[in-house]
Amino acid sequence: MERPTNEEISRVVVSSRVRLARNLKDYPFPNKIDEHQASELVDRVVRTVKEGNTVLKDNLTPVIIKNKSMLEKEVLLEKHLISKELLNENNGAALIQEDETISIMINEEDHLRIQVLMKGLSLLQAYDLCDKVDDVLEERLKYAFSENLGYLTACPTNIGTGLRASVMLHLPALVELGYMGGILESAGQIGLAVRGLYGEGTKSIGSLFQISNQLTLGRKEEEIVGNIIGISKQIVERELEAEKILRKRMGLFLDDRISRSLGILRFSKVMGTEEAMNHLSNIKIGIGIGIVKGIENSEVDNLMIKVQPANQAMIAKEAKRDDKRADYLREAFKNVDIN
Amino acid sequence: MERPTNEEISRVVVSSRVRLARNLKDYPFPNKIDEHQASELVDRVVRTVKEGNTVLKDNLTPVIIKNKSMLEKEVLLEKHLISKELLNENNGAALIQEDETISIMINEEDHLRIQVLMKGLSLLQAYDLCDKVDDVLEERLKYAFSENLGYLTACPTNIGTGLRASVMLHLPALVELGYMGGILESAGQIGLAVRGLYGEGTKSIGSLFQISNQLTLGRKEEEIVGNIIGISKQIVERELEAEKILRKRMGLFLDDRISRSLGILRFSKVMGTEEAMNHLSNIKIGIGIGIVKGIENSEVDNLMIKVQPANQAMIAKEAKRDDKRADYLREAFKNVDIN
Repeated sequence: MERPTNEEISRVVVSSRVRLARNLKDYPFPNKIDEHQASELVDRVVRTVKEGNTVLKDNLTPVIIKNKSMLEKEVLLEKHLISKELLNENNGAALIQEDETISIMINEEDHLRIQVLMKGLSLLQAYDLCDKVDDVLEERLKYAFSENLGYLTACPTNIGTGLRASVMLHLPALVELGYMGGILESAGQIGLAVRGLYGEGTKSIGSLFQISNQLTLGRKEEEIVGNIIGISKQIVERELEAEKILRKRMGLFLDDRISRSLGILRFSKVMGTEEAMNHLSNIKIGIGIGIVKGIENSEVDNLMIKVQPANQAMIAKEAKRDDKRADYLREAFKNVDIN
Repeated sequence: MERPTNEEISRVVVSSRVRLARNLKDYPFPNKIDEHQASELVDRVVRTVKEGNTVLKDNLTPVIIKNKSMLEKEVLLEKHLISKELLNENNGAALIQEDETISIMINEEDHLRIQVLMKGLSLLQAYDLCDKVDDVLEERLKYAFSENLGYLTACPTNIGTGLRASVMLHLPALVELGYMGGILESAGQIGLAVRGLYGEGTKSIGSLFQISNQLTLGRKEEEIVGNIIGISKQIVERELEAEKILRKRMGLFLDDRISRSLGILRFSKVMGTEEAMNHLSNIKIGIGIGIVKGIENSEVDNLMIKVQPANQAMIAKEAKRDDKRADYLREAFKNVDIN
């Protein structure tokens, strides 16, 4: 099998994410913490960043969850900058980088969840940056750490490195050919979890799947990250192979499907999130096989976030309305064409 | 209820057709005629027209059915210029006007079926022209005629005037609202037949219905024609009323449906006849409510014939292929837009 090109990899691997779970030694775990202590902890973390001498100082903006509207919180959730747990956490806060690469959640399941989110297959870079942010914080905060176990966390699955590494993969051909069952099974056997667009318990829409490590104990960080990178590349190869089969099998009917999706994106007046995601997924295939012109793959990846309900409502500055989504997509695709 | 405008009438009434059934006195009816007599009859009718001194002389082209390929015959059938019966009739022939208004079928169920086909609600004009052609033929041919019964025909339902008048109606709103059942029932009660696009036993596609008189005996020609015109206008009023209800009920979702049809017509790569008919039907609604720009209603009516399988194969000069239909429609709609 040919090794996939970087372009092919970054088409299939939409984004890479690394997060480190950390807790402060001097405070009870979030499930035992009282409101006063939780608030003090937020202050301490924010001050640690803001009074430090690193680049983080100017780049990270504190977000106090209880001061935000539900819509604002949902926008952050859809962008993967905060978790569903934090959204409902009264003591929650986050420090978010303007370009949305770094996000430090405070008082989530653990005191700190340091997250780095990057485009494409960039797990090593994401881990490096996450590690640096962790070092900056550790200089002034005392982490709960055991010589035997490593970093201590609220949930035993996170003990050790506290690391979760994940990639978001776009796998339309494997879905179409019914091969996802096999992928899920083999991923599970080697300790990986495969989930939908918004993590645990969410279904896949737009053929997007999140693959992450399940366990963090007893393995080195580099090993975990390397493992996910290796598996990702294997799945990319399988997706590209499936794409070839699909093109051969469907022929003109695949072009027709992609082209119709473009027609609908350019002409519909009302469109729900899931339908939009499916058309965008078809456009990504079209870019991959070279028939869709006038839009970059990364732009479509962005649109897949932008068409989510809260993001749409925020963009339209109005209640969530399916006609606004259609307007937005018509505009986004007005100069996109097909061979 | 407001009286429909001429524009509204010609949008709903796609075409008008009148045909007269006639038999020659000196020949057995077609079910008893032998091949030699049938061939002689064709010669006689063709000579009558070609050696006459009327405008018909230069305008009508003889078509000998058995000399035509199945594809050529199907094209004529789809254009409503010959009937399904004539297509399989070894002794059959037709004299067809270049602009496809007049068609005289020879050796169909009757010796002669003189037909005039016009756009819009033009039954009176169609009848006048049909009557004139009939007069021209009657000058040199002896018709089977009884003082008591009128013109004698092979099937008793045609005896008398031998006249069948029909209109092709586009009734998408009545179909959508489920009101066609009532229309069919009341039409039947007053002696009218409602059929699909290609007459008896064919189903309606693209929301097109053919309405015609069932009986020809004991009524004057003007009465039959006037009756169909009156009923047509009533149904037009009901369709326009239903369209208003539909617009109110569906709102933006109607615009969305029409706009998506345009998007699909402009972008699909493979399309079957029935799907094409449904999109064209939506485009007709869009023209009616004023949101589709860049194409005339009559052009869409023409496309509804052109997308039929044999017409497509003839246009593409190839076997019947759904991708050629999509290509053809993309081209036809490339400059059509929506508000």
